[in-house]
Amino acid sequence: MHMNSSKRIRLTKIEGEQSETIYDIVATEEPLEISLAYGTENGRQTRRVSVTMRTLGFDEELAVGFLFTEGIISGKQQIQKVHSRAENTICVELIDNLELNLSALDRNFYTTSSCGVCGKSSIDSIRIVSPQNKNLQDFTLQQDFFFSLPEKLRAVQDVFRTTGGLHASALIGKDGHVILMREDVGRHNALDKLIGACLLQSYALSDCTLLLSGRASFELIQKAAMAGIAIVAAIGAPSSLAVELAEEFGITLVGFLKNGRFNIYTGQERIKMTNFGQ
Amino acid sequence: MHMNSSKRIRLTKIEGEQSETIYDIVATEEPLEISLAYGTENGRQTRRVSVTMRTLGFDEELAVGFLFTEGIISGKQQIQKVHSRAENTICVELIDNLELNLSALDRNFYTTSSCGVCGKSSIDSIRIVSPQNKNLQDFTLQQDFFFSLPEKLRAVQDVFRTTGGLHASALIGKDGHVILMREDVGRHNALDKLIGACLLQSYALSDCTLLLSGRASFELIQKAAMAGIAIVAAIGAPSSLAVELAEEFGITLVGFLKNGRFNIYTGQERIKMTNFGQ
Repeated sequence: MHMNSSKRIRLTKIEGEQSETIYDIVATEEPLEISLAYGTENGRQTRRVSVTMRTLGFDEELAVGFLFTEGIISGKQQIQKVHSRAENTICVELIDNLELNLSALDRNFYTTSSCGVCGKSSIDSIRIVSPQNKNLQDFTLQQDFFFSLPEKLRAVQDVFRTTGGLHASALIGKDGHVILMREDVGRHNALDKLIGACLLQSYALSDCTLLLSGRASFELIQKAAMAGIAIVAAIGAPSSLAVELAEEFGITLVGFLKNGRFNIYTGQERIKMTNFGQ
Repeated sequence: MHMNSSKRIRLTKIEGEQSETIYDIVATEEPLEISLAYGTENGRQTRRVSVTMRTLGFDEELAVGFLFTEGIISGKQQIQKVHSRAENTICVELIDNLELNLSALDRNFYTTSSCGVCGKSSIDSIRIVSPQNKNLQDFTLQQDFFFSLPEKLRAVQDVFRTTGGLHASALIGKDGHVILMREDVGRHNALDKLIGACLLQSYALSDCTLLLSGRASFELIQKAAMAGIAIVAAIGAPSSLAVELAEEFGITLVGFLKNGRFNIYTGQERIKMTNFGQ
């Protein structure tokens, strides 16, 4: 848990006819301005690409994950350094002479990772996503693998248990252990932080399962596709467009994962059933 | 419940060692492009102001509510008509010769109601919100008023109960009845739809309580302030910035409203306690 991801405030607690003044903690939410610096050795320029409301902490991972999942950068090798000149700002410096997809930049200027679709200048372009042209990995998991995930997520969600206000994204290895977990007031930021962390640590995502603490929306599946993730499991419900996109990209999508139950919406071939009771 | 706000799909349901192919419904999520047409009688122009992922239905209310809570229009009297030329698009035609705040337009070009902060070109401008310069109403409610709200919301949340994937915003009258409720995959869209509906029906919000099915974020408090709402009650947690903004605007903010309990974060003077048991 990042030390600044929550804040102590004074409030009045009401229970039935009783009231009491207490101190409790709430999840922090502050804007982060993400900039991109690029160009030649002698001619560098800086552009603001996003302002997003985020939980404090892991700004570097958030910025890198955002640029990657939005298709602006293709990998860690394009990054020279990441620095922060002032509070609530972060700048990703790219290496010299990089050929940038400026249309992706234009498209993403003014976007935010908390929505994912704004900044696209027409509805048609929303569906123009370029996953890494990787074929997603073909591997299978037993259904038992999934049953244990909600409890594992709860165990690592320290901040969530104290403030009750954060979304989580976690990366689960084939053996079922939680490799990494990130939280944020914005579900998209939590995923960008997770993917950014893997990118910065050169951690391959292709045989991992992405576990989402809440709902599976279109944007989250879009980001998972960009990262080459083959299996996404959500504690909450998927949207219709999330199901369509998962189908299109060959992603296995599991939803309503709780209490020993889940639904498989797409990519069922990656889940192996052991019907030994039948 | 709008007829298109959910969609029937085929999925595999897993429970323990059993699997079963069933049909279930998921919440629909599709992009909506909001445009604004304005100018003189002889020189009209149209600008795209937002693309947002939303649940189908109530597009007119969503567009009008978005333009109002983002400070682009000040009321219904500025609207000539609202029409849709193609699927997933909506255009709000303003009356002739309206003096528009074009900087608000610029700021909001490419924004989406699902995030609320993108499009603002700097962090500083996020806090520049102009509530209607109304003094929020001073009225008081008993604590019992709040205890009954979660159950009332559940009773009207038809879609939520079937798909489990929608956020709701509801308007509660002083006498505790649910005046209006709107749902959406995006919590900001649900609130924009609610506020847009009130605007179109010329319904005054000033002595109502806004009930939120989930978390109270900065953007939701910002929208509530724009609409002149004095009391906001959230089933979920507030963020730190939501609490700060509510304090700044004089809004009463209640959070964690469930199981006969709630927390008062700001504006406690509007809640009257009956401690007859003491």
